[in-house]
Amino acid sequence: SPLSLCVIAGDGIGREVVPAACRVLARLRPDIGMIEAEAGWDTFQRVGQALPDATLATARACGAVLFGAVSSPSHRVDGYRSPIVALRRALDTHANLRPVRPLGGIGRPDVDLLIVRENTEDLYIGEERSDGDTAEAIKRITRHASERVGRVAARLAAGRGGRLTIVHKANILPLTDGLFRDSVRAAASGWPALTLDECLVDTAALRLVQHPEHFDVLVAPNLYGDILSDLAAAHAGGLGLAASLNLGEQCAIAEPVHGSAPDIAGRGIANPAATFASLALLLRHHWRDADSASRLDAAIDHVLAQGIRTPDLGGDASCEQVTRAVCDAVLAS
Amino acid sequence: SPLSLCVIAGDGIGREVVPAACRVLARLRPDIGMIEAEAGWDTFQRVGQALPDATLATARACGAVLFGAVSSPSHRVDGYRSPIVALRRALDTHANLRPVRPLGGIGRPDVDLLIVRENTEDLYIGEERSDGDTAEAIKRITRHASERVGRVAARLAAGRGGRLTIVHKANILPLTDGLFRDSVRAAASGWPALTLDECLVDTAALRLVQHPEHFDVLVAPNLYGDILSDLAAAHAGGLGLAASLNLGEQCAIAEPVHGSAPDIAGRGIANPAATFASLALLLRHHWRDADSASRLDAAIDHVLAQGIRTPDLGGDASCEQVTRAVCDAVLAS
Ligand SMILES: CC(C)[C@H](C(=O)O)[C@@H](O)C(=O)O
Ligand SMILES: CC(C)[C@H](C(=O)O)[C@@H](O)C(=O)O
Repeated sequence: SPLSLCVIAGDGIGREVVPAACRVLARLRPDIGMIEAEAGWDTFQRVGQALPDATLATARACGAVLFGAVSSPSHRVDGYRSPIVALRRALDTHANLRPVRPLGGIGRPDVDLLIVRENTEDLYIGEERSDGDTAEAIKRITRHASERVGRVAARLAAGRGGRLTIVHKANILPLTDGLFRDSVRAAASGWPALTLDECLVDTAALRLVQHPEHFDVLVAPNLYGDILSDLAAAHAGGLGLAASLNLGEQCAIAEPVHGSAPDIAGRGIANPAATFASLALLLRHHWRDADSASRLDAAIDHVLAQGIRTPDLGGDASCEQVTRAVCDAVLAS
Repeated sequence: SPLSLCVIAGDGIGREVVPAACRVLARLRPDIGMIEAEAGWDTFQRVGQALPDATLATARACGAVLFGAVSSPSHRVDGYRSPIVALRRALDTHANLRPVRPLGGIGRPDVDLLIVRENTEDLYIGEERSDGDTAEAIKRITRHASERVGRVAARLAAGRGGRLTIVHKANILPLTDGLFRDSVRAAASGWPALTLDECLVDTAALRLVQHPEHFDVLVAPNLYGDILSDLAAAHAGGLGLAASLNLGEQCAIAEPVHGSAPDIAGRGIANPAATFASLALLLRHHWRDADSASRLDAAIDHVLAQGIRTPDLGGDASCEQVTRAVCDAVLAS
């Protein structure tokens, strides 16, 4: 059956960068069908669900999703839950790949690392309660999820001929983070050639600022992965270039790390590069089309290196100009 | 009654930097008595308690503690709990002050920020359970502790004529981190001149790498404060210079942020500067001796600026040489 992609633009600049990425994909892989679906704050206000059932059904049917960005309410709103977190869990995309490497000569040339973030549990399970004066949240870590993400991280690290660093805080959380560490270690033993080490999350944060070039692949529980991947993105042009892939056994969601940026939405200056790079991750790791992925990566690299850059990168190109240039570069490759 | 300091060297380089700081204090404030007490991994192995009752009693009696660093077992050991975490809770030192600013010309000259970390709850309460395959930890946030740390942060920010940024992840944890945010906001309303804003923890990590100079005072729940303060220390010479003060209503614990560094322990090259700077925080905020605190800060600054630096800062001075130079500079001031 033909491949298809569920396209969720979301809110804000998601509605600019996602259509841009669809144009690029149409050039690269005209065989892939695209089906639009809605999610986000705007959707919630209209239909009362941030991730409507119909969207979830489409995402499941396609298996592959391109997710832009969604706005969230600044204060607690009953019934609202982050649709991307819900989608990650519903599609069981258990590993979130967040590469940090220089693109188009932007960022530190010596940094090439990959953060593999556990994507289904930890404090993200949404189990919280409060009596108004005392609130509690559950941080849940399971052997199953930890081993699973450990296998993904170990396989990718081994594929790079590299080193895997387990991030945890087991000195304070011996049972939960200790289970994460031990499960990843057990999973990684399937790749005996791998160099394995570990690092406390606070130390990892410091080292990622001081010596990001010392890291290769990091694997972390959900929340630490969230924090460290934003931090590390600083070395490679910031969020405008930060790509991610939520990867599961059956499904995958390509998702730029940036948010919906309401302050610049609608002005045509959003940077689509992170979304393009996320699509490249989807092509490589989900559809196993390394050739298209490499062509797309090369096109992004080429366009940025030429100085065709949006204002967040110090350039004066529009989203449209970057998109057209990447489409052209893809066709020429 | 005369002031006294409970001195806990701990393990590893704690046994080098703490005696060094005691010599400096004796020059500055010969009136302050010092009482040694033990804690740490070595203590645990000898007496079965990482924080013996006698140590806790001495700490309580003195009200002021100088804590070096302790080693922790690399794997879970029954009955072992981090003595510094236990001490913070036992003495109810509810705010952990972690300033990041250039010392002796080391680090970014434009950065001068203060992280105020909640110090008694969050995931640090040690409530964990596991059935071997699923482990859970409780993250607890209370209005009481959040307001309390909010008041400290707001007071310090107002004293700097500054801005207070609340760090949280309320988009994922609306009840717990939402309570933290709302409580700090409520507490800060007592300082109406203060500029108040907020930032998601992942975004804060990114901005602290990219634009640390944009921050003034940050207030964060315990774990985020732990991660962000290590991260931010990278801008000011790393852990060798990172000072902290655990501050409560009755008690305070001066504590360098670095660990016990077993790899360099016993070689005489440990950097005592962070411990000196922590002592300065104790003098200023607990004993309210701004004069001695400023003299000590100036002495550290002067010695480092002269190039009398330990190897972690690229110098070749020993702990002894730095200590002697700071003692001399204090006397000359
Ligand atoms: C928007 C938010 C729910 C999300 C997360 O915390 O996972 C984002 O920060 C990310 O990193 O993808
Ligand atoms: C040693 C450890 C328990 C401690 C903490 O996590 O609080 C340390 O990292 C710190 O920042 O003081």
